[in-house]
Amino acid sequence: MSALESQKTLFHTFDSPGDALALDGGRTLSPYTLAYQTWGKLNADRSNAILIFHALSGDSHVTGVHEDGRTGWWDFMVGPGRAFDTEKWFVICANVIGGCKGSTGPGSINPATGKPFATDFPVITLNDMARAQRPLLRELGIERLHAVTGGRMGGMLSLAFAQLYPDMTERAIVLATAAANHAQAIAWNKIGRRAIMNDPLWREGHYYNEPEGPPKRGLAVARMIGHVTYISEGAMDRKFGRNLQAAEKESFSFDVDYSVESYLAYQGSIFHERFDANSYLYITRAIDYFDFAAGTGGDLTAAFARTRARFQFFSYDADWLYSPDRVEAMALAARAAGREAVHHKIHAPLGHDAFLVQKEPQSGLIRDFLAE
Amino acid sequence: MSALESQKTLFHTFDSPGDALALDGGRTLSPYTLAYQTWGKLNADRSNAILIFHALSGDSHVTGVHEDGRTGWWDFMVGPGRAFDTEKWFVICANVIGGCKGSTGPGSINPATGKPFATDFPVITLNDMARAQRPLLRELGIERLHAVTGGRMGGMLSLAFAQLYPDMTERAIVLATAAANHAQAIAWNKIGRRAIMNDPLWREGHYYNEPEGPPKRGLAVARMIGHVTYISEGAMDRKFGRNLQAAEKESFSFDVDYSVESYLAYQGSIFHERFDANSYLYITRAIDYFDFAAGTGGDLTAAFARTRARFQFFSYDADWLYSPDRVEAMALAARAAGREAVHHKIHAPLGHDAFLVQKEPQSGLIRDFLAE
Repeated sequence: MSALESQKTLFHTFDSPGDALALDGGRTLSPYTLAYQTWGKLNADRSNAILIFHALSGDSHVTGVHEDGRTGWWDFMVGPGRAFDTEKWFVICANVIGGCKGSTGPGSINPATGKPFATDFPVITLNDMARAQRPLLRELGIERLHAVTGGRMGGMLSLAFAQLYPDMTERAIVLATAAANHAQAIAWNKIGRRAIMNDPLWREGHYYNEPEGPPKRGLAVARMIGHVTYISEGAMDRKFGRNLQAAEKESFSFDVDYSVESYLAYQGSIFHERFDANSYLYITRAIDYFDFAAGTGGDLTAAFARTRARFQFFSYDADWLYSPDRVEAMALAARAAGREAVHHKIHAPLGHDAFLVQKEPQSGLIRDFLAE
Repeated sequence: MSALESQKTLFHTFDSPGDALALDGGRTLSPYTLAYQTWGKLNADRSNAILIFHALSGDSHVTGVHEDGRTGWWDFMVGPGRAFDTEKWFVICANVIGGCKGSTGPGSINPATGKPFATDFPVITLNDMARAQRPLLRELGIERLHAVTGGRMGGMLSLAFAQLYPDMTERAIVLATAAANHAQAIAWNKIGRRAIMNDPLWREGHYYNEPEGPPKRGLAVARMIGHVTYISEGAMDRKFGRNLQAAEKESFSFDVDYSVESYLAYQGSIFHERFDANSYLYITRAIDYFDFAAGTGGDLTAAFARTRARFQFFSYDADWLYSPDRVEAMALAARAAGREAVHHKIHAPLGHDAFLVQKEPQSGLIRDFLAE
């Protein structure tokens, strides 16, 4: 296979078999669809598969340039010769259930009514999202994963998968996340949801067929909050400072004066073009509910004892959303449980978003970890 | 005067004389009212006055129990025998213009129309707020201040006053703030304003006489954001963690599950009872615009050279809104300008809000500084 061919992305859908997905909340989801992509080739003994989990606003478009012109969200990490070398590994990524990028979510048609689920969609957990991908792997003929990986929510999903399927998970590469969503992170999610649900166009979630469209302005506020948490205070200072956007002096109005206002307003305003407000509600709620040690009475070491994976953790020193201390706590607990675990604390002045944009030294460290 | 008498608070209003207040934005405000309170007694040579500036949502109710049953926002610091000892000092605090606690602001009647100003109120600056208090001091017979002080916006106003009126300002006690609002703080203000202005009840600011009332829900989101910035991530973990509010398990809904959600939702929901949404817009905008070195081309040392005060700075080690580094930068610049300046970096796990709740060691340090 040429480098070019291996970079070509293929978008697939997987429709779950008749058996229902039993959800943590007590309801079931059946049938459901997963939109997924793969890169590279599964080897003869089916031992080279790597499952990537995306973050909140991500999708299955991990790498390569897609039909819509966008480059994948982890393009620099996944591809021929890259950290996740698609000449060597068979890489899979599926959009999570609850999402809005091809997998079944609140915007999908509810077969019981013929209309979009909207808020009739069940509230799900990250464990549900991870479980939903198990049948897809079976369909692809994969019974063991060389590794699972992801950042933020994708890191939480990697942890969830490693605990749910210990015999399937050889390695977990976990970036910029925590073993449970902490109070401040729950707070940001709550405020974002509140902003969406305050928007009169939200209509209790039933906006899909309304002429006025989705709750764009509420979603914009949620997205703006997210953006502030993704980069460090210092990075915001360096990038924007108190620079004015256009005029030479302040407008003495509530319009955009500063570059940082312009940046956030823009990021907020375009988000509805690629993301569904209800999916934002469902996915942030699932993140809130995540607690890796929930099944072991809060004992993190006991939770890691349920896994059989080798762990590679990454944290970013200027990440104030999921700080290095939280990552170190995971590494210590994993080791206490007898698991191999290494924690790389990366110098990354950008903060949390570093996992999406900074290539080194992570690339080399991941390549080595996968080869061990 | 007995301790009891000196604690009794008196609410006054000051109506500006006919001369207009020329505002930085080019407009004028005339006439205007300041609601203020005083404690203690001005001494014979009028040398014992201390002017306190409140923060964003504060008011002139600094200390004592008031008619509405509320205790002042800095009660533990101001009073007989306290750091700002009202047996010794004559303490004054006025609600800022633009506010909603008795001073002229967007909710006040515009004499030109006979209706509330709403968004016809001029966009003001912290310098405007400081200037507005100069005539009040003259009215009280005060030409020199033993000290100006305040935290957050109140610290910025103290800096502004010290630069505007160097001959009046002997000391400035500046807590939990910065010499200019930085990009991340501008971002939070922007998002809060956006949430208010998104609320259909905001009506471009003209909601005062509407039967549906003010934009409570938008203001609640703004307030929730504020609350998260006021305490540290660690303090949120210790106070709330992942504790559930009432039920034994998650509700699998978007309702309140976690204590931190309940706390924020409550704080957000009651804020409109004591604060006007338009004032939130005007005051946050004034904070955005604050740059102590704006008049000296960004040269912070040159800005301090325009003052004649002795400076006492306080920062709080877990304050992530206005970090100790920003405060240290002020202290260094003040010293470079030949000013006496001391910076006390306080160990305060609570974070930014420590200035409002933590008594020691600040009390002793302030008492000593005032006595020097």
